[in-house]
Amino acid sequence: MQSANVVIVGAAGLVGQQIASVLAEHMQGLPVGELRLVASDRSAGHELTVLGRRLTVEAISPASFQGMDFAFFAAPNEVSAKYAPIAAELGVVAIDKSSHFRMQDGIPLVVPEVNMRHIGPADRIIASPNCSTIQLVMAIGPLDRAFGLRRVVVSTYQAVSGSGREALEGLDAEARDWADGAEPQAKAYREPIAFNVLAQCDSFLGDGFTKEEHKLRFETRKILGRPDLPLAATAVRVPVRVGHSEAVTVEFARDVSPDEAREALRGLPGVRVVDDPGASAYPTPLAAAGQDDVFVGRIRQDPDRPDTLHMFVVADNLRKGAATNAVQIAEALWQSGM
Amino acid sequence: MQSANVVIVGAAGLVGQQIASVLAEHMQGLPVGELRLVASDRSAGHELTVLGRRLTVEAISPASFQGMDFAFFAAPNEVSAKYAPIAAELGVVAIDKSSHFRMQDGIPLVVPEVNMRHIGPADRIIASPNCSTIQLVMAIGPLDRAFGLRRVVVSTYQAVSGSGREALEGLDAEARDWADGAEPQAKAYREPIAFNVLAQCDSFLGDGFTKEEHKLRFETRKILGRPDLPLAATAVRVPVRVGHSEAVTVEFARDVSPDEAREALRGLPGVRVVDDPGASAYPTPLAAAGQDDVFVGRIRQDPDRPDTLHMFVVADNLRKGAATNAVQIAEALWQSGM
Repeated sequence: MQSANVVIVGAAGLVGQQIASVLAEHMQGLPVGELRLVASDRSAGHELTVLGRRLTVEAISPASFQGMDFAFFAAPNEVSAKYAPIAAELGVVAIDKSSHFRMQDGIPLVVPEVNMRHIGPADRIIASPNCSTIQLVMAIGPLDRAFGLRRVVVSTYQAVSGSGREALEGLDAEARDWADGAEPQAKAYREPIAFNVLAQCDSFLGDGFTKEEHKLRFETRKILGRPDLPLAATAVRVPVRVGHSEAVTVEFARDVSPDEAREALRGLPGVRVVDDPGASAYPTPLAAAGQDDVFVGRIRQDPDRPDTLHMFVVADNLRKGAATNAVQIAEALWQSGM
Repeated sequence: MQSANVVIVGAAGLVGQQIASVLAEHMQGLPVGELRLVASDRSAGHELTVLGRRLTVEAISPASFQGMDFAFFAAPNEVSAKYAPIAAELGVVAIDKSSHFRMQDGIPLVVPEVNMRHIGPADRIIASPNCSTIQLVMAIGPLDRAFGLRRVVVSTYQAVSGSGREALEGLDAEARDWADGAEPQAKAYREPIAFNVLAQCDSFLGDGFTKEEHKLRFETRKILGRPDLPLAATAVRVPVRVGHSEAVTVEFARDVSPDEAREALRGLPGVRVVDDPGASAYPTPLAAAGQDDVFVGRIRQDPDRPDTLHMFVVADNLRKGAATNAVQIAEALWQSGM
């Protein structure tokens, strides 16, 4: 095959459009032949320009997957639940950004730089992890291999675009209202997010943690193949448009110096160490937005425990946290001859 | 004495003005007789209305402290270093919001609800802690007494007003520029803070930690009388105007349930437990702004360690984090007959 036929499900959404952009940048590694854009009835009929082609978004149906090589799912869970198996049945590789299949046995949950080996030749549904999980495992996966993780504690600073287009427009509207002198009114979440911080991402579960916090815990364990890894998260929404940040505390099986950790991370594909406190150089979401790399900085040893490091991990949640990771999975499969 | 004579040093600044507001609310417990406003030459001459009185800000000099009972220092370190000893020599109780004296032996560093007992009858210089420290010890101090702290890890989400009026105006200007469609330009810090997150509060020290992170560590140890308490912090600036938040992980000497922790915190003066995940109730900086209490929520047990709790602590950094704490120190001394 000279080129791959691709369908994007949820093509009108933030992540769907980002997948289209990233595909255009990866034409060398993953040359796209036929391209279909599909979505719910609500978004069908929209015209979008993708890869220089003017395309109409079609309403999703089983026929959407006929003759395709890859299907990117950037749609609600129930859409993936219904259509990914249909695509797989037709021999299409479904790369799913929803959380529906992620924790199912037999479904590989993949960050290409970390665990591409989890994909077997017969796999037709491949889950792409939660945005906050992807950047975390990009940073701590290599450290686990080098030094052995014993425990992880993570506090997140998550961008509003992680909640989708409507939430992002809500933040923008709140910020504009503020500039106009209006009282804060919630337009993205239950409480205002402009000039505020909400210690809630996704809904609460019975144990006092949120779904997002569970995703960080259980997806990280699956990806790293460490089913018992102690990991606790606090997931917090901040008034940032694009770019998730994470303050990460990592305990190792042995003492690890910041230099050893930087050494283990430097030069890895997809990871950039930005860590020069003397020059106030550390990762920020504004600088990471639009980039594919995961940025790691503020690496320092715990003052009381030489087996513990603290660091700050930042990535574009729409790119490596979503679109780029999904496209990289397809590209790696395509390059391997599937 | 029927009333206390009070001088506010740095009266034109954010914290100085907040001290004036808080004094007005505490006239019953701390009736103010003569009130003087002093500041650097730069701010002298400004007219301000405080306690219903129209006052002119005077240039600071040793004479500013003559006949005063309390001097509130809300000015740069060097001003406190120079004038607090002069005030003390004159018998004035200097309550210092700067960091200059905080870690000096023999200087009590006080949060009234936690360690008022550290003030001896001869003390004339009393340090008020860093804003992020005050709310932390208000939350973990009672838990230390009840269960015994073994280790603390804290990630902060700090408001821009913690950097003073110019930084706050910088954030406002950045947000307005954004609403006008301009490219982000840094107006408060080295990098833009609107729609961004900066993993730096105050300057970096040689060990990779910032001054703010050191303050959290060493001030907490002093206030709690736990000089060896393991504590590591990551201090992060977020685009919030007022109200610091903290994601806190606390390990105890024994297993502690969230209910036990809530029980230990409920009903304490100055602490409010806001913790009902089922109703999405947890503390936020927007709701805490303008309040004197420290708000604690998201209390939950670590899924791997029953001796560890995670929680989210929020307070108004200008009030309990600065002005209110200082006024409470003076009020408690006044009520005790000094």
